[in-house]
Amino acid sequence: MSGCPFGHTGDPGSNPAEAERRGESAGVERSGEPAAVVNSREASDGGAGAAAGTATKGMSRRGLLSLAGVGGAGAVAGLAAGFLAHDALTAGAAAADTSTGESVVPFFGDHQAGITTPAQDRLHMAAFDVTTEDRKELIKLLKDWTAAAEAMTTGNPTGRTGAVDGPYDAPPEDTGEALDLAAAKLTLTFGFGAGLFEKDGKPRFGLDGRRPEALIDLPHFPGDDLQPGRTGGDIVIQACADDPQVAVHAIRNLARIGFGKVRVRWSQLGFGRTSSTSRAQVTPRNLFGFKDGTNNLKVEDNTLLDEHVWVGSGPAGEQWMTGGSYLVARRIQMHIEIWDRTSLREQEGLIGRTKGAGAPLSGGDELPHPISPWPAVTAIP
Amino acid sequence: MSGCPFGHTGDPGSNPAEAERRGESAGVERSGEPAAVVNSREASDGGAGAAAGTATKGMSRRGLLSLAGVGGAGAVAGLAAGFLAHDALTAGAAAADTSTGESVVPFFGDHQAGITTPAQDRLHMAAFDVTTEDRKELIKLLKDWTAAAEAMTTGNPTGRTGAVDGPYDAPPEDTGEALDLAAAKLTLTFGFGAGLFEKDGKPRFGLDGRRPEALIDLPHFPGDDLQPGRTGGDIVIQACADDPQVAVHAIRNLARIGFGKVRVRWSQLGFGRTSSTSRAQVTPRNLFGFKDGTNNLKVEDNTLLDEHVWVGSGPAGEQWMTGGSYLVARRIQMHIEIWDRTSLREQEGLIGRTKGAGAPLSGGDELPHPISPWPAVTAIP
Repeated sequence: MSGCPFGHTGDPGSNPAEAERRGESAGVERSGEPAAVVNSREASDGGAGAAAGTATKGMSRRGLLSLAGVGGAGAVAGLAAGFLAHDALTAGAAAADTSTGESVVPFFGDHQAGITTPAQDRLHMAAFDVTTEDRKELIKLLKDWTAAAEAMTTGNPTGRTGAVDGPYDAPPEDTGEALDLAAAKLTLTFGFGAGLFEKDGKPRFGLDGRRPEALIDLPHFPGDDLQPGRTGGDIVIQACADDPQVAVHAIRNLARIGFGKVRVRWSQLGFGRTSSTSRAQVTPRNLFGFKDGTNNLKVEDNTLLDEHVWVGSGPAGEQWMTGGSYLVARRIQMHIEIWDRTSLREQEGLIGRTKGAGAPLSGGDELPHPISPWPAVTAIP
Repeated sequence: MSGCPFGHTGDPGSNPAEAERRGESAGVERSGEPAAVVNSREASDGGAGAAAGTATKGMSRRGLLSLAGVGGAGAVAGLAAGFLAHDALTAGAAAADTSTGESVVPFFGDHQAGITTPAQDRLHMAAFDVTTEDRKELIKLLKDWTAAAEAMTTGNPTGRTGAVDGPYDAPPEDTGEALDLAAAKLTLTFGFGAGLFEKDGKPRFGLDGRRPEALIDLPHFPGDDLQPGRTGGDIVIQACADDPQVAVHAIRNLARIGFGKVRVRWSQLGFGRTSSTSRAQVTPRNLFGFKDGTNNLKVEDNTLLDEHVWVGSGPAGEQWMTGGSYLVARRIQMHIEIWDRTSLREQEGLIGRTKGAGAPLSGGDELPHPISPWPAVTAIP
């Protein structure tokens, strides 16, 4: 389940040329999970065919992925993308899936947009540290962000005067680089990290007892090499759009509105295949050349969404999370040069599917007909 | 004149979060110039209105751009994008402008594609060091690249067997991540750097006397902070496409074909605004929020193209360059946080144009009617 592409990116943490020279290339994988503890792709996609029986000469698919973290690009952020509108910290919530070829995805709705919204092409995600300790300032910021997010997701500039209609002797309210661009299906999804609720053992912003029990720190994964500067954060904003300049403009202007109250901790650009230039609905391929996401939950299945994506009613302190979800973002380094020297047989054995059609090696098509229920996640890999 | 966007990028050389924290943000500006010595935008766009008379409080547009290099992201590569097909080192040349909404831009033609081709949305550019000293190996590589480039620009995988039809116990010839994608207007433009002709004072590959006189090293620019690892290169390949995965796939597979003969020195991802989701033909905006490229040479003006872009017949040793061109790639760091605190009046004064319409402050519209000839470049800024 993924609201927008967190698939392949220029690796802002290293020089790509250097990465290629040392036999590595960077990719990013994102999974938005019902719980913040499991990477769906590892559990559901790599589980069945991959591990069992296929000769690996000391190499495993998980090794190719996870050991990549040794190179220094790993990062984990456990963040609650909750129902901002239902919280005391009033912000906006948005429709689940209302884009129908139009350029505007509504910001307000039963759920936040950008979670089950059909994946846009481009991503800019930023995590912020909240530097103020003033609850009123935080509330004001979230209200300002809500107004700006509503404006930008409808293709308008931020502020009352936008990019060019303000006082001539003041800096413009909006930075202007999206002036001639459409809304491009921009979605802005806001999430709260553990650090918003408490820091150094002390509750913040009067949010004592409001941190959801499910919002735990991720356990250590084999190969993890977490960099503190690219890990965690008090608030995350995921901007997805079909135009990268629209996504970048949104994060930039939200960061600008937050000046003095929040500080960008890390940010990440990303892209997937451009849906408008490929056959619609085809499962996208990752940098290993394999279809990736075959077993993802299908948006159409409301029962499974309620079970695995949307948070139901919880304890008293967590009512604000009802209808929200959890997000896990992981940067994963893919050793593509090693992969590129691996035989087709071994590649397919490691993935458990054919490279061309994406069908299970055990037979059949990529997608069963009708689509079978998504297997419940029963173990942390 | 620009074949594809080299406008805004994730800065692969630094952490964007860190860049934002230190009050800077990185952008990249590319100019494909008739000579490798002048940055067109600096000379033509910033010349007239910008410098003269507008109060700057110690700040100039050039300062905002060039001083950015002090931060450490400057890079210059002077490279000849010549007529490969006319050279002893046989390779392909391509049509100047044949994309008409279709997905395929022909690779072969009078000029290389990707120079006057209508700008695609995405870029992956890579510079290579040639590690072999064997002329035959180099020729073989260029022939292999030509075949692969023709295949990929028509939407096909590389090699005779592609991504999935080769021997089951060998690595596939193509890496496969573009299998389901269209050609996406992919263009591949090849250029030769000075280092291909001579290195350490010695001629290479029998190319003594073939280096064009115009292919000089760039002079020092104020604020330059060149990083050797991101500067220069013997061969450059510019991949432009409307789908980033198609551009990345192309560079990756060309690098793979060159394994053992060339090594990636640096590479750069880039994007412009997505033309398919914005009003067609509008001049794109840079991260300063201003229209950028208003004074660029128009593709329709063949006389100006012949004068400023396409190399005419030269001395005996340079005949292979006839119909080729020169390319200058510069990474430019833009101090957008400083910019964002600047008044609209000062911003417009520094640029010399209005922020909204992009019209000259001296009056009139963004584009004169009819389009006036591009002013000749008479000075190095």
